[in-house]
Amino acid sequence: MARRIRIGIYGYGNVARGAERAIAKSSDMRLEAVFTRRSPDTIRTLTPGVTVAAAENVTEYKDKIDVMLLCGGSATDLPEQGPELAKHFNIVDTYDTHAKIPEYLEAVNAQSVSNKKAAVISVGWDPGVFSLMKAMLSSMLPDGKNYAFWGPGVSQGHSDAIRRIDGVTGAVQYTVPSDDVMNEVRNGSLKDYTVRQKHKRICYVSVKEGADKDRIADSVKRMPYYFSDYDTEVIFVPGDELEKEHSGMPHAGSVLRNGITGSDEKYTTEFSIKFDSNPGFTGSVMAAFARAAFRFHAEGNFGAKTILDIPVSYISEKSRDQLIKETL
Amino acid sequence: MARRIRIGIYGYGNVARGAERAIAKSSDMRLEAVFTRRSPDTIRTLTPGVTVAAAENVTEYKDKIDVMLLCGGSATDLPEQGPELAKHFNIVDTYDTHAKIPEYLEAVNAQSVSNKKAAVISVGWDPGVFSLMKAMLSSMLPDGKNYAFWGPGVSQGHSDAIRRIDGVTGAVQYTVPSDDVMNEVRNGSLKDYTVRQKHKRICYVSVKEGADKDRIADSVKRMPYYFSDYDTEVIFVPGDELEKEHSGMPHAGSVLRNGITGSDEKYTTEFSIKFDSNPGFTGSVMAAFARAAFRFHAEGNFGAKTILDIPVSYISEKSRDQLIKETL
Repeated sequence: MARRIRIGIYGYGNVARGAERAIAKSSDMRLEAVFTRRSPDTIRTLTPGVTVAAAENVTEYKDKIDVMLLCGGSATDLPEQGPELAKHFNIVDTYDTHAKIPEYLEAVNAQSVSNKKAAVISVGWDPGVFSLMKAMLSSMLPDGKNYAFWGPGVSQGHSDAIRRIDGVTGAVQYTVPSDDVMNEVRNGSLKDYTVRQKHKRICYVSVKEGADKDRIADSVKRMPYYFSDYDTEVIFVPGDELEKEHSGMPHAGSVLRNGITGSDEKYTTEFSIKFDSNPGFTGSVMAAFARAAFRFHAEGNFGAKTILDIPVSYISEKSRDQLIKETL
Repeated sequence: MARRIRIGIYGYGNVARGAERAIAKSSDMRLEAVFTRRSPDTIRTLTPGVTVAAAENVTEYKDKIDVMLLCGGSATDLPEQGPELAKHFNIVDTYDTHAKIPEYLEAVNAQSVSNKKAAVISVGWDPGVFSLMKAMLSSMLPDGKNYAFWGPGVSQGHSDAIRRIDGVTGAVQYTVPSDDVMNEVRNGSLKDYTVRQKHKRICYVSVKEGADKDRIADSVKRMPYYFSDYDTEVIFVPGDELEKEHSGMPHAGSVLRNGITGSDEKYTTEFSIKFDSNPGFTGSVMAAFARAAFRFHAEGNFGAKTILDIPVSYISEKSRDQLIKETL
């Protein structure tokens, strides 16, 4: 049997722990080391006995790591870490600032190519598996429309936005798709829907004693971009209830493409996911794509790729022959 | 703009007409010619003005066709036509005898490689898009189970099997999945289900006057492999009703993978399709993969590939850069 792929994790938050749990379920890889900007002795990994090292010493591990999973955030971490670590490692990341992906891809690609490394950027569910489904189904049903629905599930970005309002001590925001609109789309609708028709937002909020709840609810509902385009409900709850009832990170989502061939033959396709842990799924996708980075590197196929550039056989634990025999 | 991909269709049945309708919706390809073993002047194509030629003269079109779509059947046509036409053309086919795919792949690959052509075999929905989903989701959620449900929809193979019974003048068989079992799986079940629990079969049958209906119903229900493992219902209807009510070819299907990370974090993923025309979808998938065969050939990447070997960017009408910018 081939030796296990030696994985490094750079940055140790929720997605990193998701990746760690996925690696533990994969018989062809092994977590070699975790790198952190915090003090390494404050980190307790889920995997017993794994090395925890300071991020600044990462290049010392160049020959011990086959693929590095970059688990930092897209706002400030990855734009710097991606191109830098691509000089020394094969990398996988979850860069998700959609509008800047082409620019980021080019920056990582330049370093990967000139240092003979392989990189896979922007994996996860969106960008990621959802992008793949949209591209695939649009290619197969060119005369049609894509629809995406999110939730029911927690949005970290929206929860954070509420927490920044004065007087708020805690907040969890659920994005909830409209059942009626989803059912119309599942039944072949090709209509356009507004943002407001497709989703509503439900916010559980805890506040300081004596805080003006009307003002806070109003601030949430009027917040541009995050809430003003949606029907938003604000529910005030005590802090301990928020902690107890709303601390999980479940999420769900669906992408659909409805299409037509000939004059009136209708096709409806749907990909849906639903999970207890959003970062758990993202980490699992990263682990699968570590195989692709490892294989591309072994083949001398250097540079940065996206999920749209990678055959599925490259992310499977199985050999191509075995996969074709068992799956096709 | 690049010139259109010139497509040939070899064999002109339902799937071929599905491919033809898909080509008509694709601005980057053009149907160049249809090849038939019947007399060419008996064929009326959907596309006005397209050349219809005798199958035996196909090699005369070597330089006029970029990609040939092989629309014959898997039982006797493709095992012979695939390797033969792969000598002269880039091909796409729907070979679907699951157990023999590795052998067929090798036979086509040998001819494609030595004649510097590109081939894409076994596309459609199963084998095809469903295989891709199973391989992808199994790679991402290694600790889990796959489930597949078919229908409600018409199965040609099962309908044909009934028609071979003495006294039967017509038959249409619907495969119907169990709602209860599907809902259990959609809610994260990791149980095993029997064939009988997952699907039932409903057969609309017309018979000769005076035929023994009890004997025929019994013959259907006891037929090994096709019906004996299922709860099968046989409904006798007049021939004209069968023609009027059951001549469409709608179908539907779902593949699901439920998985676990850590000790108890659950993930449910589902890909579903539902369509008015089964061969319409198969033909649409073939047309999309014609782009891959064309591009592989242009890059000098010869040989036979499956859907598991092909990045999604190769089947899109868009350039890679445009696809990444717009989809990721």
